[in-house]
Amino acid sequence: MQVGAQYLDNKRCRFTVWAPTKERITLHLISSPKRLVEMKKDEEGYFQVIVNNIIPGTNYYYQIEDGPDLPDPASYYQADGVHGPSQVIDHNAYQWKTKDWKGLNFKDLILYELHVGTFTPEGTFKAILPRLDELKEMGINALEIMPISQFPGTRNWGYDGVYPYSVQNSYGTPDDFKQLVDECHLRGIAVFLDLVYNHLGPEGNYFGHYGPYFTKNYCTPWGDAINFDGAYSDGVRDFFSDNALFWAEIYHLDGLRLDAIHTVYDMGAVHFWEYTQEKLQRFRQQTGRKYHLIAESDLNSPRVVQSPALGGYGFDAAWLDDFHHALYVILHERGRKRYEDFGSIKQLAKAIKEGYVHSGEYVEFRKKKYGRSSAGISGDHFVVFTHNHDQIGNHPRGQRWGGLVDLERLKLGAALMLLAPYIPMLFMGEEYGEDNPYYYFVSHTDQELVRAVQKGRREEFANFDWASDPPDPQSEETFEASKINWDKRNQGKYALIREWYKKLIHLRKQARALQNFDKDQTEVTIHDEKCLILQRNSGTNAIVCLFNFSNNALEINYKSSFKSWRKILDSTDFQLSGRKQLEAKDEVTKSYFLTEERIQIKPTSVLVYECN
Amino acid sequence: MQVGAQYLDNKRCRFTVWAPTKERITLHLISSPKRLVEMKKDEEGYFQVIVNNIIPGTNYYYQIEDGPDLPDPASYYQADGVHGPSQVIDHNAYQWKTKDWKGLNFKDLILYELHVGTFTPEGTFKAILPRLDELKEMGINALEIMPISQFPGTRNWGYDGVYPYSVQNSYGTPDDFKQLVDECHLRGIAVFLDLVYNHLGPEGNYFGHYGPYFTKNYCTPWGDAINFDGAYSDGVRDFFSDNALFWAEIYHLDGLRLDAIHTVYDMGAVHFWEYTQEKLQRFRQQTGRKYHLIAESDLNSPRVVQSPALGGYGFDAAWLDDFHHALYVILHERGRKRYEDFGSIKQLAKAIKEGYVHSGEYVEFRKKKYGRSSAGISGDHFVVFTHNHDQIGNHPRGQRWGGLVDLERLKLGAALMLLAPYIPMLFMGEEYGEDNPYYYFVSHTDQELVRAVQKGRREEFANFDWASDPPDPQSEETFEASKINWDKRNQGKYALIREWYKKLIHLRKQARALQNFDKDQTEVTIHDEKCLILQRNSGTNAIVCLFNFSNNALEINYKSSFKSWRKILDSTDFQLSGRKQLEAKDEVTKSYFLTEERIQIKPTSVLVYECN
Repeated sequence: MQVGAQYLDNKRCRFTVWAPTKERITLHLISSPKRLVEMKKDEEGYFQVIVNNIIPGTNYYYQIEDGPDLPDPASYYQADGVHGPSQVIDHNAYQWKTKDWKGLNFKDLILYELHVGTFTPEGTFKAILPRLDELKEMGINALEIMPISQFPGTRNWGYDGVYPYSVQNSYGTPDDFKQLVDECHLRGIAVFLDLVYNHLGPEGNYFGHYGPYFTKNYCTPWGDAINFDGAYSDGVRDFFSDNALFWAEIYHLDGLRLDAIHTVYDMGAVHFWEYTQEKLQRFRQQTGRKYHLIAESDLNSPRVVQSPALGGYGFDAAWLDDFHHALYVILHERGRKRYEDFGSIKQLAKAIKEGYVHSGEYVEFRKKKYGRSSAGISGDHFVVFTHNHDQIGNHPRGQRWGGLVDLERLKLGAALMLLAPYIPMLFMGEEYGEDNPYYYFVSHTDQELVRAVQKGRREEFANFDWASDPPDPQSEETFEASKINWDKRNQGKYALIREWYKKLIHLRKQARALQNFDKDQTEVTIHDEKCLILQRNSGTNAIVCLFNFSNNALEINYKSSFKSWRKILDSTDFQLSGRKQLEAKDEVTKSYFLTEERIQIKPTSVLVYECN
Repeated sequence: MQVGAQYLDNKRCRFTVWAPTKERITLHLISSPKRLVEMKKDEEGYFQVIVNNIIPGTNYYYQIEDGPDLPDPASYYQADGVHGPSQVIDHNAYQWKTKDWKGLNFKDLILYELHVGTFTPEGTFKAILPRLDELKEMGINALEIMPISQFPGTRNWGYDGVYPYSVQNSYGTPDDFKQLVDECHLRGIAVFLDLVYNHLGPEGNYFGHYGPYFTKNYCTPWGDAINFDGAYSDGVRDFFSDNALFWAEIYHLDGLRLDAIHTVYDMGAVHFWEYTQEKLQRFRQQTGRKYHLIAESDLNSPRVVQSPALGGYGFDAAWLDDFHHALYVILHERGRKRYEDFGSIKQLAKAIKEGYVHSGEYVEFRKKKYGRSSAGISGDHFVVFTHNHDQIGNHPRGQRWGGLVDLERLKLGAALMLLAPYIPMLFMGEEYGEDNPYYYFVSHTDQELVRAVQKGRREEFANFDWASDPPDPQSEETFEASKINWDKRNQGKYALIREWYKKLIHLRKQARALQNFDKDQTEVTIHDEKCLILQRNSGTNAIVCLFNFSNNALEINYKSSFKSWRKILDSTDFQLSGRKQLEAKDEVTKSYFLTEERIQIKPTSVLVYECN
């Protein structure tokens, strides 16, 4: 049953809301003209009514058993915020320029995580449009947009959203978001959206009034879990699984990133993810469209990306946090302090060769044996990053990668992310080494909640000995300070970093060996405990990448059967001072043979060879 | 790490207890001679010490950080009950007569659920011994003993046990239980034990003092769940998985029945059941012994019996409650009142042909779509019964099957259970139609708890309009009234029922087609909405069973390609009055051909044919 206010045609609208344990629900139309309309309940607990003489933009509430006005949990738009009325939206009005768009293959994606509020000074969907061409030119072909479901106020990461079918009013209208998707598709850029199915935000959450959306059987960091398997869970399962479909059908999205799926609890015989995948699979078959699901998971379990037939959840890919942690600790002097269970270059090699670094051994941070091997699962089932909103924002100083490590290490990290056999994801601004902070920020209107959040942040960081007080999450300055400074991108080191990223992305797209995600054809070796050599094969062809993490030049004997070695990338060519002004073309044709397979590599640098 | 007090040799004993967050634990030996001994903690959180000059029977406590005396969670014996000291047991002392016993194949089992306290007037392990020969003679070859872990007082079903490594003091000593197992094995009877890994009893539960055995992430009907996946869960996982192994190694058991596994929560990458199965698999390989795991599960999910490689839990079998419910509702006039989602003969046919009756459809009792098809899973992965301790005891009048339905229906139920392609389980006394009640009973010493249990039972049955007040679970009379009356078994209708069960079991063991659990070779058809025909095939041979549930005689045309029909069983031959006095031998040789495949069947009766 499609919930929400479906605008049909000829000023008719069908209102549908699920409230299985309620006797009566009244639709309260508060504009054009003001009316109270009784709804009719079906045997599955859905209340429904079709009303005439409705125009798009009409605001409405529901009244449960003569109770107060409440917004629609499946509201398509909350023009006046989380506590205001819901709005009738005509989802057929927008004229798509890219009706025939079918999407991109997952393995070809270069993802770009973007927070709408801080990506531009305006913080709107429309303000993103002028930047698309440049992103495209960088080689980025997929936006992964942080949650846009209506949240309280105007400043929020999005994980406090409470209307999973709506777009945030301060970001723009439903049509504005459709236009963004349309313009992306025009440029061959796919659009992914971050959705939160493990909880609803603490303010403006009226779900409990309607029905048993929550269960006390499981606890999450945000309180009672969403009821995916208890009594009356059918309506909850459909609310969320239909939501996953809604963003494909109505907004033409290319895929989803699902937040913290380890707190989506379901012990039932058909797991919620399997149930959802079945609906999406029908959609894919009917439309020929791609629609990919990416999981954020804290389980280190291959089950996340395995098929339901093997007991898995069937996600196309999972975020590979272990890759981030292993990299962070190698490149950042204080990294070990933050990620106590990481630190050796062997772990980084394991992250590249197998995926999960923790695959069953005892992990101090978790006080238990943790994870399971993902060896053998092809690399296109994992998404890697040098940083993301969480790794930055859940840090007392909110420091981005670009503000944490020096230029050489920045280049090393970028190369490792883009040359590893995984799907890379940049965090907005990373492509030019943005060094502004990215803080945690909210704009709740409930003052008790504000104080609780402020207290929570202070307590969370109390154990970081290197932290001053974290900035106040509720203050507007914290939000403003978190915006990226796009103007930097053509200046000095920022421009240099952009060129490096662009070159790496270009190489990744061009070299056949870099498009091969078969782990059996990926070789990782460690030399002198400080240099990691990644060889990616494709038939008789290979790309050999050398990453020297030490502060010393190294000389390496690399055993291989290749006859021809052609250097195609050298990070030391990308220097602010004394930098060689080479044309891209000159550089890639500068080749030679290494008769003795003896390679000299400068401190903290990357060398890439094409070998035959 | 093997927890508990391991008696070694030469009066030496190794004490091991897990308390990962504690600094100090002192062993307090309260007899022979009285001593305080400091224990040493290892890096996994185990405290250990080897003490000399200890004799078996020595009592001890632990003191945590100078706290009070506490019993050992891994106590092997609590001679003075749940609050008393733990006792050193020499598990090598018992001289086994059946050292080379390897066990039975699961598909050959005729299970017999037995509650030690109410099976005999004495309610002890030893009192069971004189009855084994008769059970054996009946054809029963596997006891499934309700929980014997030490519980508070002397009267309890066993699900309030708090010492998973111990045996109930009022039932006997560890050696008494070993003797029972030994005597069973001597007779070719396997022994299964019911273990509870989803909670610990409410009284005498000192686990929380030692470590994080519980988690607030999940709730069970008994409170916080056992911590199988959170911080410090390694010790908990080992405590219980080693326990599963303990009963195999120390007590030579043949398998386990695991209570309500749907409340054993584990979201980790390696599920607790998979972790446990790996240990048991090593044991099986090393010893050549059979060791079967049976699950009680409320999930209606084939995952329970699927292999971990397919995302399953890997149990050998699961209790098939749906078979019971479908049968109950057909045979008992008020059954529909109790099991509102059951009632049609088609459901009974589905239970026989597929397993789960509810395989994804909406179920009123659960207020949600429930279950998943188990079609195709061979029948030896399910255990069926006409009743069990739960179905009787969790009923206001505690009525056994024998007290609920008439003789003809009793015979119908027995035949269906024993001729269906599943593993049958009788509840003690069922084999002679025991009609004494079986109530819920406890003997807590904590008065507040007693009142809570009494209140809980009254509330549980408040909605049964056919119930008077349930008997007081705490009273000794309730317990005494629940004992079976073994003396009945050779009298009147009881003797007749015994003969019927014996005949059915004999037929089941003898006929090849009845040993074929392949569902593709099982055919179930319904005639006249009141007669169920079960055909079990084996090559060119078949057993055809007709069950007439109606009060009318029926004439049935059964289409088949068999040329020879031989009647081998007719329930109407087993009558109290006017009963034909046939020798078993005479009866099975009384055969004839049905030229027209037209069969006449009397009201509420069973006919069984052997066909070629």
